[in-house]
Amino acid sequence: MMMTLVDGEPAAVVPVDDRGLSYGDGVFRTLAMRQGSAELWSRQYAKLTADCLALGLRPPAEAALNADIQRIAAQMPDCALRITVTRGSGGRGYAMPSSVQSRRIVAASTLPDYPASYGEQGIRARFCTLRLATQPKLAGIKHLNRLENVLARAEWQDPEVVEGLLLDADENVIAGTRCNVFIVEQGALVTPDLARCGVAGVTRELVLEAAAMHGIACRVETISRKRLEAADEIFLLNSLVGAWPIAKLEQHTWADFVLTPLVRKWLDAFRNSPY
Amino acid sequence: MMMTLVDGEPAAVVPVDDRGLSYGDGVFRTLAMRQGSAELWSRQYAKLTADCLALGLRPPAEAALNADIQRIAAQMPDCALRITVTRGSGGRGYAMPSSVQSRRIVAASTLPDYPASYGEQGIRARFCTLRLATQPKLAGIKHLNRLENVLARAEWQDPEVVEGLLLDADENVIAGTRCNVFIVEQGALVTPDLARCGVAGVTRELVLEAAAMHGIACRVETISRKRLEAADEIFLLNSLVGAWPIAKLEQHTWADFVLTPLVRKWLDAFRNSPY
Repeated sequence: MMMTLVDGEPAAVVPVDDRGLSYGDGVFRTLAMRQGSAELWSRQYAKLTADCLALGLRPPAEAALNADIQRIAAQMPDCALRITVTRGSGGRGYAMPSSVQSRRIVAASTLPDYPASYGEQGIRARFCTLRLATQPKLAGIKHLNRLENVLARAEWQDPEVVEGLLLDADENVIAGTRCNVFIVEQGALVTPDLARCGVAGVTRELVLEAAAMHGIACRVETISRKRLEAADEIFLLNSLVGAWPIAKLEQHTWADFVLTPLVRKWLDAFRNSPY
Repeated sequence: MMMTLVDGEPAAVVPVDDRGLSYGDGVFRTLAMRQGSAELWSRQYAKLTADCLALGLRPPAEAALNADIQRIAAQMPDCALRITVTRGSGGRGYAMPSSVQSRRIVAASTLPDYPASYGEQGIRARFCTLRLATQPKLAGIKHLNRLENVLARAEWQDPEVVEGLLLDADENVIAGTRCNVFIVEQGALVTPDLARCGVAGVTRELVLEAAAMHGIACRVETISRKRLEAADEIFLLNSLVGAWPIAKLEQHTWADFVLTPLVRKWLDAFRNSPY
């Protein structure tokens, strides 16, 4: 089942001259709606706004998005939401139109039904061969230029492999194809620096904040492949999956998870809080 | 005036779940139609096909595109054509849908009306501050992930500045925001290597071929900013503009063009040839 609103109205199509289609000129968010409530909405909206501003896009008003979300909640109280903001319709050429009118697209689809074992026993992952490009002007932003993710995801077909890890050209770990990554080292959390590539997701931000709150050391650092492989635990996270530990990464295996279950509890608590 | 065909039918819209919009998952071509004929069509189709294959996209049949072009030619015999091929509609997630059905979009718009002086006396250009990212898996391909070009083009408003030049992170010249670049050094042509970033356009390929045909030395090499600034001539090219010499690049000026007018003649001859 799908339900889509384009600028607040039910629609299955967008104008063919949308700059999101022409150039990937826009940003998006993916989040879960559960029991009619868009999870961590204030943070999601703040990140959407920040990403819009980073590209010189006018962010949609929160009230307009709230109305969209309520309209969807009435029909699909449990769904995956994708909110896309594009630079709207524009003529030929890269120059931004003089009268910029952003377009907002809110699309609801069925929540993915992942096995509970992914969160509890962990998943199988692999390393992708594609190396993420370094572009400080786009790093951290969840923009619509996602061919790297598409190509990386196309590297494997094995359904047992749940996620692929992406390195940069210096062979440092950045993220999964659709998630952020943390490692555990001697009781401390470490997550890669995303100043040069990758997407800085809302769930990553939550973990950084929760760790500080709970007095668990948490650092943003460069993580080489070797360092990741030697970690005590590795976990992947995004707004739909929460946190999944990695049980098997090519020839390496992990079975004892101490901090990952704790992080999962933190995330549950955030989800159930009104903020 | 605009006229658009989506999968062969007149349409002003595309489905909102098109992967071109969701991820920039597709490629495109821009070319001129003059007197009802799509210029250098065989080469344009060959490049479109090569770019599709590089992304694992099924290229549209040439007959289907020919029919689209003829349909447009009947109404707009002189126009700028943009041909876009996307991976079509797909659900949530980066994984390519198992039954891939590419979507083709052929959009015609009015041919831009550039001053003749751009080709004869030259244009004013600048250096952009954005540095192109290095991604060998996407380099050369005219894909839909064009945020770098959009951000680079947004760096200046001055209408006297016609184009911005883009460097890579090593400060080597790669291209303009919407064109390829050649320099002239002691009677030889040199154009940047595009193995790590940039788009290898059809007009660039033509110049390489024509130079070989006419016995003019022509090399693909790394071109530093200093080397470019010291060149005897610089020219920019794409399928719509042909070749424009640079007359002014920040504090540097050029006024004597010897090889650029010759290249313009080569391009005219190619355009008027049946192939």
